[in-house]
Amino acid sequence: MKKKIVLSVNAGSSSVKVSVYDVEFSQAPVQIAEAQISGLTSPPPTLKYVKDGKLVVKAKKVDDEIKDQRDAFTLLLETLIDDEDFPQIKSKEDVGIVCHRIVHGDDYTKPQLISNETYHHLENLNDLAPLHNANSLGIVQLCIRALPTANNVACFDSQFHSSIPEHIRTYPINRDIARSNHLRKYGFHGISYAFITRSAAKFLGKKPEKLNLIALHLGSGASACAIKAGKSWDTSMGLTPLAGLPGATRSGSVDPSLVFHYASDVGKLSPASTKELHISRAEEILNKESGWKALTGTTDFGKITSAAFSSDDSDHEVMKLAFDLFVDRICGFIGSYYVSLRGQVDALVFAGGIGEKSSQLRAAVVDQISCLGFEIDEEINNKKDIKNVVEEVGKKGGLDKPRVLVVQTDEQFEMARACAEDAEFW
Amino acid sequence: MKKKIVLSVNAGSSSVKVSVYDVEFSQAPVQIAEAQISGLTSPPPTLKYVKDGKLVVKAKKVDDEIKDQRDAFTLLLETLIDDEDFPQIKSKEDVGIVCHRIVHGDDYTKPQLISNETYHHLENLNDLAPLHNANSLGIVQLCIRALPTANNVACFDSQFHSSIPEHIRTYPINRDIARSNHLRKYGFHGISYAFITRSAAKFLGKKPEKLNLIALHLGSGASACAIKAGKSWDTSMGLTPLAGLPGATRSGSVDPSLVFHYASDVGKLSPASTKELHISRAEEILNKESGWKALTGTTDFGKITSAAFSSDDSDHEVMKLAFDLFVDRICGFIGSYYVSLRGQVDALVFAGGIGEKSSQLRAAVVDQISCLGFEIDEEINNKKDIKNVVEEVGKKGGLDKPRVLVVQTDEQFEMARACAEDAEFW
Repeated sequence: MKKKIVLSVNAGSSSVKVSVYDVEFSQAPVQIAEAQISGLTSPPPTLKYVKDGKLVVKAKKVDDEIKDQRDAFTLLLETLIDDEDFPQIKSKEDVGIVCHRIVHGDDYTKPQLISNETYHHLENLNDLAPLHNANSLGIVQLCIRALPTANNVACFDSQFHSSIPEHIRTYPINRDIARSNHLRKYGFHGISYAFITRSAAKFLGKKPEKLNLIALHLGSGASACAIKAGKSWDTSMGLTPLAGLPGATRSGSVDPSLVFHYASDVGKLSPASTKELHISRAEEILNKESGWKALTGTTDFGKITSAAFSSDDSDHEVMKLAFDLFVDRICGFIGSYYVSLRGQVDALVFAGGIGEKSSQLRAAVVDQISCLGFEIDEEINNKKDIKNVVEEVGKKGGLDKPRVLVVQTDEQFEMARACAEDAEFW
Repeated sequence: MKKKIVLSVNAGSSSVKVSVYDVEFSQAPVQIAEAQISGLTSPPPTLKYVKDGKLVVKAKKVDDEIKDQRDAFTLLLETLIDDEDFPQIKSKEDVGIVCHRIVHGDDYTKPQLISNETYHHLENLNDLAPLHNANSLGIVQLCIRALPTANNVACFDSQFHSSIPEHIRTYPINRDIARSNHLRKYGFHGISYAFITRSAAKFLGKKPEKLNLIALHLGSGASACAIKAGKSWDTSMGLTPLAGLPGATRSGSVDPSLVFHYASDVGKLSPASTKELHISRAEEILNKESGWKALTGTTDFGKITSAAFSSDDSDHEVMKLAFDLFVDRICGFIGSYYVSLRGQVDALVFAGGIGEKSSQLRAAVVDQISCLGFEIDEEINNKKDIKNVVEEVGKKGGLDKPRVLVVQTDEQFEMARACAEDAEFW
């Protein structure tokens, strides 16, 4: 029986997480360790290291030399190899597969084995998502050199959405330019939605191909997805992750004219651009200088929520505005997807940092959509700890009553699982 | 009893329409004539003139000297004055009030009397909507000079939406810049939505303040509106008319990043800009070079529909794509507003050129939203002529069943009515 050590690498804008799995071909991966460096954009960065579910290092400040995602990954790899009590990785050669979360995958419909030869295909994707792909690609490049015996695999956040029908993914713009410039709705958070679909199907005792969901991945980036017969039917993000719901620093969908009234010269390149990566000031404003942060001064949705619910907080008014605005936009997509799925919805799923943690947000959303038959169970929803991968927080009802679930989504696991099942990577 | 002749002026991008009303203070206006020049962007322009409901001139080609909206208005005014069989307007002095449809009204919540002194306030609005306000303002300026004894009144397409609550109209962007640059959701087609609200309330025998509607104004520009207790609660257009539904040449909502991937230098001024009016290439692309026209080659939704429904048409595939895309986006807003109104919806209203004429579009939309209880009456819906101002095309059902109406909206009448009721203009 073939076994491999699989590393799932998830590079965010200010963090890198590596999950380590013991994987038997075509079996469910078993996590054996997890290491993360956070705070790259608010130094000093800190290291967290968990082994066999036990915390080994909590939040150790690490060298200021750790400047970017590549440095962080190098340190995480060293941490794993240098740990004498971690027999599974004694040297670089013990790593069999490294799978990398890549945000934008253009037309790719499944994970891709990356070689020196195919790497340039991935680099081309940068043009479509310069703000989102670059961090991951830096680590891919490093792995190709540093782990020559491992298979590198690209898992795309967009691939789950390749099933979106043409009339939904098409933008009503010039068709030739749309074709040549690859302009259509792609959608993201797809690795998470794949995890959610499988987990919810198992929990509800339905085959994925019989399952319709409205799923919400709500974190510092947030999106909604209509899942029909186990496949993506529509999603709120678009050509890039900017469209749809607002996030920590992202505006979400706004009038496409807005940015031209925001500042002059928004078409010019941002100083953050490099020779290879062209980022307009406009994209920087809407992706990095908007969202909760711009409205309220904080990216911490927990803070926003608690101030929104305490009327004597000095920031109560603006925090309530941000909370209500988010609920309004989320419910807009739920209503839209309910119709798009013709009312055949098995469950509404909350996932992502905010979706999993904020009972107040869940309660407010489900209250607003009660006209569609959804109902929260207040007692279960308010439980401090949600421990299971899937937890039901909706009131039980007849067979027709749509369910309300919280899924603790796990993108790293989903990537390892995809690798475990594909003989091409073994 | 005071009586005045009121002209309602509606300047579009390639036409100018003037409706003439005999108005008694605080009474419903009585239309006595209507004159229109069309085809300003596809010369030669043509004149249509209707008096007492009878066609006087059908489509007379007019002088090529008629180059813009001001020229067109001048000719229309001459046509009315020079008509010896039209005793109500013998000279310019017979015109009591001229009300002008102005697209963008910033924070104005009601029609405004325009004087030489206040005209510059209106000019400032041009910065927010250079593509939309300029044609109307040219005519306002002309009237101030040419009709010195008349009261000029500005009726804004945005004023009906001044009731949209803050958490819905706010964009999650920098608050200081939003405030100083007046960046929020305004919404448009409001004169039409005001007409629709009053007409539907009368038809349904409800007071407007008890009436909830989802209204669709679908024409070459298209929008949706959630009307709660007779007031606008949400609408699909935003800071400008670009956001929301696609139209004849307008993309509607797309990923705000899209235009930066469409062409380079989209932030630069378009050659159509003038010293006073700054229009970016991006705004021009998304407002003038997108929509049906870009997808299918025609702006004629009737053509699109008939090709979409005949599978042997050579353009069947792309026409069906455009039709399905429009239905999808419309139904998205209906689902969203259904939730926003918490399921308390008295009726869905179709209005505007496409909404009033396309039985196929109405049938497709209502079929897609049948899960919300809406149902079309196929026989009534397919009737060739809808003659009444309000016609019911939905199946009758219990008290809870939401209705489906077609309203022949009339912006000119609505403007005249607003003027008739406001003592300030008399």
